Amino acid sequence: MANETVFTYGAPQLKFGTGAAEEIGYDLAQHGARRVLVVTDPGVAATGGPQRVADAMKAYGIEAAVYDRVRVEPTDASMREAVEHARDTGPYDAYVAVGGGSSIDTAKAVNLLTTNDGDLAEYLNPPVGAGRAPERPLLPLVAVPTTTGTGAESTTVCVLDVLDLRVKTGISHPRMRPALAVVDPDLMVTQPSGVTASSGMDIVCHALESYTAKPYDAYERKRPEQRVPYCGANPVSDMWSERALGLIAHSFRAAVRDGEDRRARADMALAATFAGLGFGNAGVHIPHANAYPIAGQVKDFRPDGYPDGEPMVPHGMSVSLTAPEAFRFTFQARPERHIRAAELLAPEMDRPDDPAEHLPRALLSLMRDIGIPDGIAGVGYGEADIPDLVEGTMRQQRLLVASPRPVTEDDIAGIFRRSLRSW
Amino acid sequence: MANETVFTYGAPQLKFGTGAAEEIGYDLAQHGARRVLVVTDPGVAATGGPQRVADAMKAYGIEAAVYDRVRVEPTDASMREAVEHARDTGPYDAYVAVGGGSSIDTAKAVNLLTTNDGDLAEYLNPPVGAGRAPERPLLPLVAVPTTTGTGAESTTVCVLDVLDLRVKTGISHPRMRPALAVVDPDLMVTQPSGVTASSGMDIVCHALESYTAKPYDAYERKRPEQRVPYCGANPVSDMWSERALGLIAHSFRAAVRDGEDRRARADMALAATFAGLGFGNAGVHIPHANAYPIAGQVKDFRPDGYPDGEPMVPHGMSVSLTAPEAFRFTFQARPERHIRAAELLAPEMDRPDDPAEHLPRALLSLMRDIGIPDGIAGVGYGEADIPDLVEGTMRQQRLLVASPRPVTEDDIAGIFRRSLRSW
Repeated sequence: MANETVFTYGAPQLKFGTGAAEEIGYDLAQHGARRVLVVTDPGVAATGGPQRVADAMKAYGIEAAVYDRVRVEPTDASMREAVEHARDTGPYDAYVAVGGGSSIDTAKAVNLLTTNDGDLAEYLNPPVGAGRAPERPLLPLVAVPTTTGTGAESTTVCVLDVLDLRVKTGISHPRMRPALAVVDPDLMVTQPSGVTASSGMDIVCHALESYTAKPYDAYERKRPEQRVPYCGANPVSDMWSERALGLIAHSFRAAVRDGEDRRARADMALAATFAGLGFGNAGVHIPHANAYPIAGQVKDFRPDGYPDGEPMVPHGMSVSLTAPEAFRFTFQARPERHIRAAELLAPEMDRPDDPAEHLPRALLSLMRDIGIPDGIAGVGYGEADIPDLVEGTMRQQRLLVASPRPVTEDDIAGIFRRSLRSW
Repeated sequence: MANETVFTYGAPQLKFGTGAAEEIGYDLAQHGARRVLVVTDPGVAATGGPQRVADAMKAYGIEAAVYDRVRVEPTDASMREAVEHARDTGPYDAYVAVGGGSSIDTAKAVNLLTTNDGDLAEYLNPPVGAGRAPERPLLPLVAVPTTTGTGAESTTVCVLDVLDLRVKTGISHPRMRPALAVVDPDLMVTQPSGVTASSGMDIVCHALESYTAKPYDAYERKRPEQRVPYCGANPVSDMWSERALGLIAHSFRAAVRDGEDRRARADMALAATFAGLGFGNAGVHIPHANAYPIAGQVKDFRPDGYPDGEPMVPHGMSVSLTAPEAFRFTFQARPERHIRAAELLAPEMDRPDDPAEHLPRALLSLMRDIGIPDGIAGVGYGEADIPDLVEGTMRQQRLLVASPRPVTEDDIAGIFRRSLRSW
């Protein structure tokens, strides 16, 4: 085969810092926007942040309405409801998402389905959907993350649960990427420590998975129409990942311990953005693939810091639970990268005799310190659940192809089994 | 005063690697383009590269014409000629610039003045022009650099000589930024070593100046409409600068020594892109301000590797000649940054006893090795020219405000005087 020689890199424009969210009206007025829909979830709406963002736009001649019924961990039903609302109350000139990945991803779907024909289901990634590509341009979407984790402000994907099929999947297209990411650490003040811990583990895994992902030049040469936003580890994504790990090393524990530590929170916001800019171009692999069934097949686990109500395994937590074992498995494919990542994540840790243990130990030490549950058993799974979990993971071929080491069903089963308990 | 709390970051989308330039037709077809103008200079046109880029677009249903009369070191007259050509033969749906900074900057001006009313002069930066902002969106511009230096593919500025006023100035607006940068190291094969040396020094200075520039949070708080693309050193530009310096440390001498060293050339192409992504958001300061009169007031210097004909000091060379003295002057404002930059640029060099000497020595050693002339006297200037040079520098207030240490006319005169001879 001829090896790939080209990598691609895309990113939203970025406005970062205290007060940045007050300027969105100006930025959208530059795009000619007059009517804007702010998309958020009820919990974030209750902080008053989204309404303040909407009100601040008036000074720039923009009329902004707030839609606050996003579901945390969105479903096809909740996304369809948001799309219906936008169709009924629109047309809009632009969208602003204020919230975590759920709000940003819902706004991406609203943007797609109010500018292009057809139903949500047609656009879902194969094999669940037909992977239809939008034919028409989307509107400007401004993403304003209020949790320091998802990186959804940087990526071209939206993730959702398809209720009938009991599967988590996504829609992925370059046009879904927000035009502008506005990261204002002041909007993150109210994040409970359990949320900081889970969403922070999402940042860690974005950086580690994209850094260890199969490199772009190990794939077969693509024609331009075959290119995907996740092109494999490359010199640009490597840089973002390394810098994100360096910020995390110095700020993550402090941010969980003390939500009022503004410096640590700003660093985590920056790390989330950097990691998003990295994985949004490189891709993620086994830990994220495993996270889909861990979250999707939840039994009765209810995490601290999240809204009461339905059981859930938060996204970042679900990603982290099998990460130590996943990186033990992938070590042999790119040993130097795994060691370097461990050094960046835990600069003061002693080097273990077995270099394959370096990254798993750095992760486990961090996860214990910040209160992540002890393995997938810690969120309610047992040995008997492993076949269903494996089946759910194997559906995420789009992610599994990015593993630096080819991975079979048996390999995944082993990773789940060894992740039942972590310490 | 209230200090700035916000930084901004903008960048073109990037496609990097061998063969990338063959895919431009696909990328522009995604924007709906059918008629495209390729903008280049006669020297680059003679390599056949621009015509190949134009021909490759046909496969995607795009009709592409080549304009090959860009002037190297463009003037207001040469830019007006290009604009007239585009107006006469247009309308076009997109522009593609293939060449060095001259072609890319000319294409930016063509894009501005075929989408917006008025004459070039109105848009020039104050005090030379009125600094008019474009009211209407520009067309997609794809920048394809063929020299590894300018970073023009990443920036929002175009630079030109205004003949009547005998001054170098620019136009700067976020809408001027190319939509896509296509960096294909194969297009750089034919670069003579003198061009590699000069344009490489431009990369070095982009990285060093943006890394040592006045930081964004040392400025007064701006309203959104006051923000400029060059917002000062910030965590994102720092990262690009550091990574560019690391690549240069390992590849610059090799790329000058052997133009066929494909690995060194690819690293320099990447360094140029990274440095452009950094300074395109942070800004540059004294060495670039001094470069304007050094190039603009040229006497009879004719550098190796450039087209015969009119005398010129190539841009990168003109930037580098006062850089060692400029960084001796700015050292005291941000000593730790100057030392770190020297370590990145010359990792194997011994640390001098006086830390202020570290960066100047690293630069001088590099400049001698790659054949940069010995000071401004080496390109024909003497003591008697210094008042005119200083006057030219002081007109570049847009750049001088980014100096980490406030700088007076006398300071600039001293920097020029101590730069007459460098070794």
